[in-house]
Amino acid sequence: MGQTKTELLSTEVRHLDITQFDFVTLIESMQGTAFQARNLARAAQIYHQMLADKQCGVILCLAGSLISAGLKKIILDMIENNMVDVIVSTGANIVDQDFFEGLGFKHYQGSPRLEDTELQALAIDRIYDTLINEDELRICDDTIKVIADSLEPRPYSSREFIAEMGRYLEKHAKNKDSIVLRAYQKNIPIFVPAFSDCSAGFGLVMHQVAHPQKHVSIDSVKDFRELTELKIKAKETGLLMIGGGVPKNFAQDIVVAAELLGAEVPLHKYAVQITVADERDGALSGSTLREACSWGKVSVVHEQMVFCEATIAMPLVVGYAYGKGAWRTRENRAYSKLFAETAETVS
Amino acid sequence: MGQTKTELLSTEVRHLDITQFDFVTLIESMQGTAFQARNLARAAQIYHQMLADKQCGVILCLAGSLISAGLKKIILDMIENNMVDVIVSTGANIVDQDFFEGLGFKHYQGSPRLEDTELQALAIDRIYDTLINEDELRICDDTIKVIADSLEPRPYSSREFIAEMGRYLEKHAKNKDSIVLRAYQKNIPIFVPAFSDCSAGFGLVMHQVAHPQKHVSIDSVKDFRELTELKIKAKETGLLMIGGGVPKNFAQDIVVAAELLGAEVPLHKYAVQITVADERDGALSGSTLREACSWGKVSVVHEQMVFCEATIAMPLVVGYAYGKGAWRTRENRAYSKLFAETAETVS
Amino acid sequence: MGQTKTELLSTEVRHLDITQFDFVTLIESMQGTAFQARNLARAAQIYHQMLADKQCGVILCLAGSLISAGLKKIILDMIENNMVDVIVSTGANIVDQDFFEGLGFKHYQGSPRLEDTELQALAIDRIYDTLINEDELRICDDTIKVIADSLEPRPYSSREFIAEMGRYLEKHAKNKDSIVLRAYQKNIPIFVPAFSDCSAGFGLVMHQVAHPQKHVSIDSVKDFRELTELKIKAKETGLLMIGGGVPKNFAQDIVVAAELLGAEVPLHKYAVQITVADERDGALSGSTLREACSWGKVSVVHEQMVFCEATIAMPLVVGYAYGKGAWRTRENRAYSKLFAETAETVS
Amino acid sequence: MGQTKTELLSTEVRHLDITQFDFVTLIESMQGTAFQARNLARAAQIYHQMLADKQCGVILCLAGSLISAGLKKIILDMIENNMVDVIVSTGANIVDQDFFEGLGFKHYQGSPRLEDTELQALAIDRIYDTLINEDELRICDDTIKVIADSLEPRPYSSREFIAEMGRYLEKHAKNKDSIVLRAYQKNIPIFVPAFSDCSAGFGLVMHQVAHPQKHVSIDSVKDFRELTELKIKAKETGLLMIGGGVPKNFAQDIVVAAELLGAEVPLHKYAVQITVADERDGALSGSTLREACSWGKVSVVHEQMVFCEATIAMPLVVGYAYGKGAWRTRENRAYSKLFAETAETVS
Repeated sequence: MGQTKTELLSTEVRHLDITQFDFVTLIESMQGTAFQARNLARAAQIYHQMLADKQCGVILCLAGSLISAGLKKIILDMIENNMVDVIVSTGANIVDQDFFEGLGFKHYQGSPRLEDTELQALAIDRIYDTLINEDELRICDDTIKVIADSLEPRPYSSREFIAEMGRYLEKHAKNKDSIVLRAYQKNIPIFVPAFSDCSAGFGLVMHQVAHPQKHVSIDSVKDFRELTELKIKAKETGLLMIGGGVPKNFAQDIVVAAELLGAEVPLHKYAVQITVADERDGALSGSTLREACSWGKVSVVHEQMVFCEATIAMPLVVGYAYGKGAWRTRENRAYSKLFAETAETVS
Repeated sequence: MGQTKTELLSTEVRHLDITQFDFVTLIESMQGTAFQARNLARAAQIYHQMLADKQCGVILCLAGSLISAGLKKIILDMIENNMVDVIVSTGANIVDQDFFEGLGFKHYQGSPRLEDTELQALAIDRIYDTLINEDELRICDDTIKVIADSLEPRPYSSREFIAEMGRYLEKHAKNKDSIVLRAYQKNIPIFVPAFSDCSAGFGLVMHQVAHPQKHVSIDSVKDFRELTELKIKAKETGLLMIGGGVPKNFAQDIVVAAELLGAEVPLHKYAVQITVADERDGALSGSTLREACSWGKVSVVHEQMVFCEATIAMPLVVGYAYGKGAWRTRENRAYSKLFAETAETVS
Repeated sequence: MGQTKTELLSTEVRHLDITQFDFVTLIESMQGTAFQARNLARAAQIYHQMLADKQCGVILCLAGSLISAGLKKIILDMIENNMVDVIVSTGANIVDQDFFEGLGFKHYQGSPRLEDTELQALAIDRIYDTLINEDELRICDDTIKVIADSLEPRPYSSREFIAEMGRYLEKHAKNKDSIVLRAYQKNIPIFVPAFSDCSAGFGLVMHQVAHPQKHVSIDSVKDFRELTELKIKAKETGLLMIGGGVPKNFAQDIVVAAELLGAEVPLHKYAVQITVADERDGALSGSTLREACSWGKVSVVHEQMVFCEATIAMPLVVGYAYGKGAWRTRENRAYSKLFAETAETVS
Repeated sequence: MGQTKTELLSTEVRHLDITQFDFVTLIESMQGTAFQARNLARAAQIYHQMLADKQCGVILCLAGSLISAGLKKIILDMIENNMVDVIVSTGANIVDQDFFEGLGFKHYQGSPRLEDTELQALAIDRIYDTLINEDELRICDDTIKVIADSLEPRPYSSREFIAEMGRYLEKHAKNKDSIVLRAYQKNIPIFVPAFSDCSAGFGLVMHQVAHPQKHVSIDSVKDFRELTELKIKAKETGLLMIGGGVPKNFAQDIVVAAELLGAEVPLHKYAVQITVADERDGALSGSTLREACSWGKVSVVHEQMVFCEATIAMPLVVGYAYGKGAWRTRENRAYSKLFAETAETVS
């Protein structure tokens, strides 16, 4: 390679703005074709239906590296325009990437053909064709520790901790285009069920080691409990899933959890998943939404898988729903307020 | 379909026994070929090297539905023969599938072409071509609640809770062929970083709702802290990863976490991953092990990805290492003992 | 299912019209992102470069079921607007699908979940989620026989025979929106290197059986020879490849063939491939364009693979180049004229 | 890289010998598991059934780079032991790889991470992780020309020409372990429906250019006609397909072609395909065997797709059938003899 760190980190990833294009005609044309274009069109229409159905709460699931890949503004536009009520995500998207950018850092365009041993020597981290300054990631870890140090020692749900991250950004953000910040301000809850599995884990481990007796812990059961409560409250729900993994499983499971708590709740009425995972390995990420019906989680009436990588498919799906405009008459459910009064003093 | 529940749940999944075959000659022959057979052969040899390297602690990562697919005995043989020191898994493998079988329940052979709405009506859950009696899964959930109810209310790592599940099985198991049970008895720690994302979540939510003020919580930070401590203790480590997802990320991250805590630890010296995930979507599951080198997690000297579904590749990889027999002179590290004295009284 | 043939064949596939959208801003925005959106943007820009490079002949390779999937009008727009100079395709696209539609028949929207044994009983053929009336396909076969019966018995290249199909459609087409017809009229050669591997094969086998001594034969060597002559004539060339298979291999090989005939020709200067095939099985369809460089076929300067299903990616790639408008100053090379005088009287 | 050509071409690919292992117990154990191991076991059993069914002619379809990958001896063992009656292949396997090795050349182990521009400069061709000496490939091309020059000028089926290659090897082979040679000697016909799409194309183009008026041509219709005649003769047939592409389509189509010629033939009674292609792009390679039933080509009773790369799956599938030994009472059908008397003098 022979490039310096500054040279390698010179071209920023730019976030795509779906409000600039007319996706409606394109998607409606794709509806007339076949294969994945038709599947994508149907998925876009189901997402539009979720928004048009005033009874339906919309849960957005995020897996994969979406923020570093330039999809942040799409999610911000969903938040601004009441197109999402709950977010369930992997930690990387929320902490390492969105919160990280909120602190003023950037992602850079690279190539999958760079030499990783050289990158390691330069303290540059690679995600396929994007690059991160590892020194900045360490600042992100440290900031998580600072936040944890400032909190009352007790078990938190990831949702509670992420709200504290939003509160922190409200004061300290160098870049206000942040999902964590805007979701905090609009009371949209964000859950990260495997919260230690990212930069937050690094910060929180440092926090706990520094405070061995009394410290913040992250109770993943509380996450599940809270999300189940939201299902019970929302009744009708729809899932817009980008990728699979823990967020998909977690969000699907709340139907069963609600039943176990004695609540009569409907299956997820709408479900869309964008993924390139394959059904044939028997893993959850690629499992069909029909399979999820056998588990009593998802209805088969309005479900659609789209076999397409997310950076291509997500702009089209969300862009269509944005263009159709059902969100104009949709209100912010501000679900985080439900939990405002219930901070526990446990255990 | 028109089949009854009894008819559908009539053919049991049988666990494959790798000790019955000679995989050594086959793998050595595959070494001379190309494409994935050669990759598989190299992966098997790297796993054998891990076992032959007496300095090296072996971390087994499990994602996907492996136990229900008939791979349980392979993992049990690894445990019995000191071929693994730490397990990091998704919840489904450990709770819904292994613990579930420990309670005396079975998985059944089905077909991906069954009608899911009919299965739902029969309370049968489908994983690709396998079937589960949903009523039995509810008993599994309830058992988790029973265990949680019996414990002192405080934050637990998943490792601690899974050890309690092992203790429970020691008394109550109807099927002693259990990973949870045998790992408990041999002091091999099992971590499930997204512990609520499975049957355990259902049981623990019921427990917390029943005990709103004082209850067991699952601290995912503690998981990360404990696994990092093991890395610091073990120094040299190797990863045998079946699938990707949270276990892959979690186990790779501990190198960085150890550094952040001030410990000088080497990169994971050996790394093998069996997966059909694709690198081209930028997600962690399919990301190359070379990419992990840029992050300072994995050495590139002894790393190998194998593009093959796990039910085919895992028997060959582990069977080869079993046949080579380096485990015969390997000791049980019994890492769980390290934590025996450190139960905290936090929060 | 329980549906009649008429009910199943009621919703026509509609061909997507890329001239209705502004893809330029979208693609330029995707350029700033990552993963496949960025790859797709780069591929679109390379195709635009091919058209802007007045020295460059453009070869379009088609594999997969593209016409039945609603992509015919895209290719027609490429032909009308001098955006393609040579077409190399599988037989299904050209004969079973495009010529078939030229005869007045249609493709219909279906579902991958239909019961194939019932479709067989109804004489309906399925391609994933599209349906074909098998009776109409038999008429297509018969028409090929009629054309063959009318020709002088001798070996033909597929290009020659397809030109005769164009001549037939000029007189008999019920639907003038035909690639075979318009390419014939504009003297754009179409090669189908495995010409018997489609409806043409059925018709030609019937022709040969009916005329055992003197009949039309299809000389695949002549195809290769003619396409190599075009490379020698064109010098600079670019490949726009939808899918892999024989068309990809065939079009790449002509660089080597030209050299073997003593001509000094450059590598393919530009190369784009849209495919979901995987590099890891060692097969040609998913092999990287860099690998093709080792063979002396493709330059690595302007090459891009896009991992995306064609119905989604092709409209965006071609739509961008259409929007950029380099074709406005491009002339029709009418390469078929080169062969007009050379009909052989062999063997 | 900095390696010389000699250094790069130093480790030979070695052909796997399935007769050395006991695959029967392994496959029968896999039958009890799930996902692709169970699919693979079922595929192996279906192939065994084909061989045990004395009415059934076995057609082996080969796509992808199998010979260069070390699978040649498996196919040779199938030929020696009457486990195959007809071969339909891509050209690369038969000409560039098997015939090439018959001339005394070798394939070498490399790596997918080699720098292709450097390989090009060294005249080394890469297939994923294998390497070929391009100078030797040119000798292979030239040998095809020599053979063509020696033949009577007329249209040949690929089968006829490949038989001539076998005759050539009988005299000149430096390596007798050749599919082309042994199939010739045992009168097993080999069809390559896209015969120009490989080294044969290079040699034949040179031949035709050197003999512009009277030359050998390859009539792909004749291939289709001959293979259809074999279907009519064989009646019951089974397909063992490694990969997809033209060989899969071609071999499936002969059922329809036979009907069009007025013969009453059954569907292919057995069908197995090993492939990593995905059904979701609507292309033929990944299309399900059930889809082929809608076309009236394949019966759904004994069909199985296996999602696994061929170098791993093919040894297990064929090794099982070898171990079961139904071939011991199977005769060589020597189908090439059917055509011996029918050489045409056309056109």
